[in-house]
Amino acid sequence: MTIRVAVDALGGDRAPSEIVAGALDARAPGIVPVLYGPAGLDTHGLEHVVCDGAVGMDDKPAEAVRAKPGSSLVRAVRAVGDGDAQAVVSAGNTGAMLAASLLHVRRLPGVLRPGIAVLLPAAAGPSVLIDAGANADARPEHLVQFAHMGAVFAEEILEVAEPRVRLLSIGEEPEKGNQLTLEAHALLADAGLRFEGNTEGRTLLEGEADVVVCDGFTGNVALKTLEGTIGSVLDALRHEIDANVRGRLGGALIRPAARRVRARLDVDTHGGGYLLGLQGIVVIAHGASSRRATANAIRMAARGVEHDIVGRLRESLPERVVESARSTTPNGNK
Amino acid sequence: MTIRVAVDALGGDRAPSEIVAGALDARAPGIVPVLYGPAGLDTHGLEHVVCDGAVGMDDKPAEAVRAKPGSSLVRAVRAVGDGDAQAVVSAGNTGAMLAASLLHVRRLPGVLRPGIAVLLPAAAGPSVLIDAGANADARPEHLVQFAHMGAVFAEEILEVAEPRVRLLSIGEEPEKGNQLTLEAHALLADAGLRFEGNTEGRTLLEGEADVVVCDGFTGNVALKTLEGTIGSVLDALRHEIDANVRGRLGGALIRPAARRVRARLDVDTHGGGYLLGLQGIVVIAHGASSRRATANAIRMAARGVEHDIVGRLRESLPERVVESARSTTPNGNK
Repeated sequence: MTIRVAVDALGGDRAPSEIVAGALDARAPGIVPVLYGPAGLDTHGLEHVVCDGAVGMDDKPAEAVRAKPGSSLVRAVRAVGDGDAQAVVSAGNTGAMLAASLLHVRRLPGVLRPGIAVLLPAAAGPSVLIDAGANADARPEHLVQFAHMGAVFAEEILEVAEPRVRLLSIGEEPEKGNQLTLEAHALLADAGLRFEGNTEGRTLLEGEADVVVCDGFTGNVALKTLEGTIGSVLDALRHEIDANVRGRLGGALIRPAARRVRARLDVDTHGGGYLLGLQGIVVIAHGASSRRATANAIRMAARGVEHDIVGRLRESLPERVVESARSTTPNGNK
Repeated sequence: MTIRVAVDALGGDRAPSEIVAGALDARAPGIVPVLYGPAGLDTHGLEHVVCDGAVGMDDKPAEAVRAKPGSSLVRAVRAVGDGDAQAVVSAGNTGAMLAASLLHVRRLPGVLRPGIAVLLPAAAGPSVLIDAGANADARPEHLVQFAHMGAVFAEEILEVAEPRVRLLSIGEEPEKGNQLTLEAHALLADAGLRFEGNTEGRTLLEGEADVVVCDGFTGNVALKTLEGTIGSVLDALRHEIDANVRGRLGGALIRPAARRVRARLDVDTHGGGYLLGLQGIVVIAHGASSRRATANAIRMAARGVEHDIVGRLRESLPERVVESARSTTPNGNK
């Protein structure tokens, strides 16, 4: 099987050079990256769809998608809706990716809101955090759907049978939380999932859950805090090690160990998150995506196609989510 | 000046032994820890007020405070209201500390909600995060008050002139965030503070702000994620270093450097957070407080008294907060 992955060559802080380089690296038997970008882009021989304009990081999502139908971001997303590609990757404006995906890839039946699922590099192996930033304001029933989608992800991609699901909150006890998590906790306990209660930010890297559920604001804050803290701790250590000869000697000796830690904890290792709940594979890459992150995001997109994540969600979601979907307005997105 | 600090000997996961030991360590000329705990407690000669019962971590806050007026937590807090102590420290149930403080220490005029202010160990020096968990659900005007209280804290305790204030959100741009932060952003821009816009979890340890403002749910998730990640990264590194002889040798050489990093980033270094907005100094210590954390929390309480944080808030808050207080219901707490 050959998987065509539409790549937004203008998305992200380091576009287009790192994006093009990453796409070249990801090209492999079975993976065909297709660059969506402006005329004159040096594509090093990769397939190229010439686009007109770019969506900026500051553009208002819905407006940008309406006003810039020919932009690289919108055209790359539309490629999936039109069947020209099986998946799309962009490190660009997350809100615009969501808006374009709702318009051109469309939601799976029964899904109220797509959610961004990312992998957390927990000690015992990766776990899924959902929603990492698609929905800054969410309702309890959205969190229940995120839990179901995250569980399918964990089953299919992480190959975990009966994934353990937890709700990100501010205490282990069910009565600890805000209005949203208190209501979501009650719904999750009754959702047919292996729900093991609340979890705290403290344990995100310990892997006590296979799926951690939260609204997109909380998930984004937690994810960025985690990424920033990993970087700050390693930087602080390097700074102290470099302070004297003894440290520098020790630093040289522990370099391989430090490299192994970095390899596991580096955000570039996974490269992005899936926007789940759509009728196609959409990967939202880190805004600061490097060449390596881009290549890994494209591989992640291809893996999503190989594992037929969309088909699995389509099959298993209706029975899983219909209960919670029924109790809400038919169109949760606006 | 001698400062009497009421210490809840039964608060926290490691009470009473670590609490009593920490109180002994904190005893100094000018600091008199007074233990509030059960009859028969071995106080090693510290002053002891015999109490009846304890508030549990799972107790419902308001009920516990009503039902257990003689408990160590409630009596220690009441000591501040009654003038028997200038400050109180507890590593116990945060919600119960808040409820007891509202009842017995009471809010400063104009304050809608007290907020927990903690110090983040940023690279450039500590910064203030407020609210770290007192208000799981907050309104935009509460965030404005937290910003003002955090600014007074930064001015008085961190000795920062004109502290830079930022709002914790999911993007630097003003239009990124959830409903709460979007509204709070607009109010903060007009609040007479040195407001420099949004910040992300990524930069919490970089110190780009002196005061980081958020609701208590978000702040608690961010704080615990930060603490957990610091621990996980250092553990992962130690694990990899211990994997072979070369690593172990290097590990021995970098030990002093690692110790310096740990000393700065260890949560025990500050020991707790102030519950600001009250007519007395209330320090909420980490639930897992060790002897060292307890001693530092008591010293932090004494420092709050020395710097007359309450007086400074009383003087400067009315003019700072009256605008925002007026636009809301007179009693924001329930």
